[in-house]
Amino acid sequence: MRLVRYRSDAGVRSGVVVAVDGSDRVVDLGPAPLTQLLAEGADAVHDAARRAPASAPRLAGLALAPPVRPGKILCLGYNYRGHVPDGVDPTADDPAFPDVFVKTPNTLGGPADPVVVPAVADDVDYEGEIAVVIGRRAKDVSEADAPAHVAGYTILNDVSDRSWQRRQSQWAMGKCFDGFAPLGPWLVTPDEAGDPQDMLVEVVRDGVVTVSQSTATTIFPVASVVSYLSSVMTLEPGDVISTGTPQKLPEAQEAHRPLRPGDAVTVRIERLGELTTTFIGGPA
Amino acid sequence: MRLVRYRSDAGVRSGVVVAVDGSDRVVDLGPAPLTQLLAEGADAVHDAARRAPASAPRLAGLALAPPVRPGKILCLGYNYRGHVPDGVDPTADDPAFPDVFVKTPNTLGGPADPVVVPAVADDVDYEGEIAVVIGRRAKDVSEADAPAHVAGYTILNDVSDRSWQRRQSQWAMGKCFDGFAPLGPWLVTPDEAGDPQDMLVEVVRDGVVTVSQSTATTIFPVASVVSYLSSVMTLEPGDVISTGTPQKLPEAQEAHRPLRPGDAVTVRIERLGELTTTFIGGPA
Repeated sequence: MRLVRYRSDAGVRSGVVVAVDGSDRVVDLGPAPLTQLLAEGADAVHDAARRAPASAPRLAGLALAPPVRPGKILCLGYNYRGHVPDGVDPTADDPAFPDVFVKTPNTLGGPADPVVVPAVADDVDYEGEIAVVIGRRAKDVSEADAPAHVAGYTILNDVSDRSWQRRQSQWAMGKCFDGFAPLGPWLVTPDEAGDPQDMLVEVVRDGVVTVSQSTATTIFPVASVVSYLSSVMTLEPGDVISTGTPQKLPEAQEAHRPLRPGDAVTVRIERLGELTTTFIGGPA
Repeated sequence: MRLVRYRSDAGVRSGVVVAVDGSDRVVDLGPAPLTQLLAEGADAVHDAARRAPASAPRLAGLALAPPVRPGKILCLGYNYRGHVPDGVDPTADDPAFPDVFVKTPNTLGGPADPVVVPAVADDVDYEGEIAVVIGRRAKDVSEADAPAHVAGYTILNDVSDRSWQRRQSQWAMGKCFDGFAPLGPWLVTPDEAGDPQDMLVEVVRDGVVTVSQSTATTIFPVASVVSYLSSVMTLEPGDVISTGTPQKLPEAQEAHRPLRPGDAVTVRIERLGELTTTFIGGPA
């Protein structure tokens, strides 16, 4: 299933996407968060989808909100083979542990929300990533039990300003500008998402594919990451774990220029869909 | 004023501390968060304090909760002169920018809540810090305007496991164990807290003072930090900015051993009070 949150006159509501006569429509599921609906039982959601009224609004006409409002957005660095810190041999051994950092709640954006390129940021970059959404509270879960705590998957663009990121040892300032975590467009449940270690992650900028790498090349798979994080912190429903970005393709690295107002970046991930983010100017 | 949140049969409530006949008592202010009460006007709180009934409960008998529930806990590294990364000359030049990292919401603890030393953490340490509480939404505020966005000050023990912190480039895993941010005991409003750049920060462990340094020696003062952070992210009421720890005294560095169940650490800060945290064992 694909599940959305959308903005309406009655506030933000949940919905399930169904195909009716060849077009995607959204069946309303009420105001409760998606993780709550799934915890109460996916059967009710399936039933609602099956009873889709012909009057259900078209997905294309809705203003989508982020599929969840995470209490924590946890992110991984250097989780794909070939993506390594500056100066490190990309064929070097895998790191022993995931490199974890945090994006603050002010970074969250909906799938259609533009990202403001801050006047003080001159080296803004994209990172197309699979975001794991926690469905059930998780503390000290094994890798075997981890999938049962996952509500599904979506896409996160880990927008980063490189010059702010590298000013000091910790990356928070480069990662935490307002709106620097567009999320969506929907939550895809595990049955429809399939194997998270067999998804092609691509980024398209200016019509050119700049990233194209399978999650088969991640160092720490989803189940391992959920288990590892849960050994330190209690993961709550709606928490997001963004699983890191692949390295840009060599030509894209050479041609790279910072994002500017007017640019757009599409992250597309096999079976998860596409997240297109436009970049705009802000107050000087 | 000293303002508290306390746990009652009617849920967590706000209160103001008043001295009645030589003992501290708490006048109930209802369920609204402290930052909301202050935003609505400190006069009403002052009035409530002046009308303190003789029946107001004793502070010592109340179960205090964290004074705020921050959406973000932002922390500074290396903000006191003499506290530098391993291998760096402590007399070296000041860093050009604050080093900022994030503690996740699961780290928050009340002032009397014990901290569980996780079975997987064998190098737990304390950091006694002044925590700035944001009172009014702040984005792109100048240093001159920053103080108007501060609700007050409290104490945070930035509990950290050094081995987890140093496993990788980013510190999140060592900083974000459940309960690793005890906060309190109360919010002290700026009029009572006085100059935040003239406070003595001390830590007492096993009856020995292990840290003793004035905030006069911080590299980035509070107004500068609030302004700097607000240039990147919108700060919200209740957000906490923990301003970094001084280096331990030389004898304390030599005698240091990791915290174990049964240990207790007191952070005491001039005009802000004391935060004593006990460390206990957890499930294996």
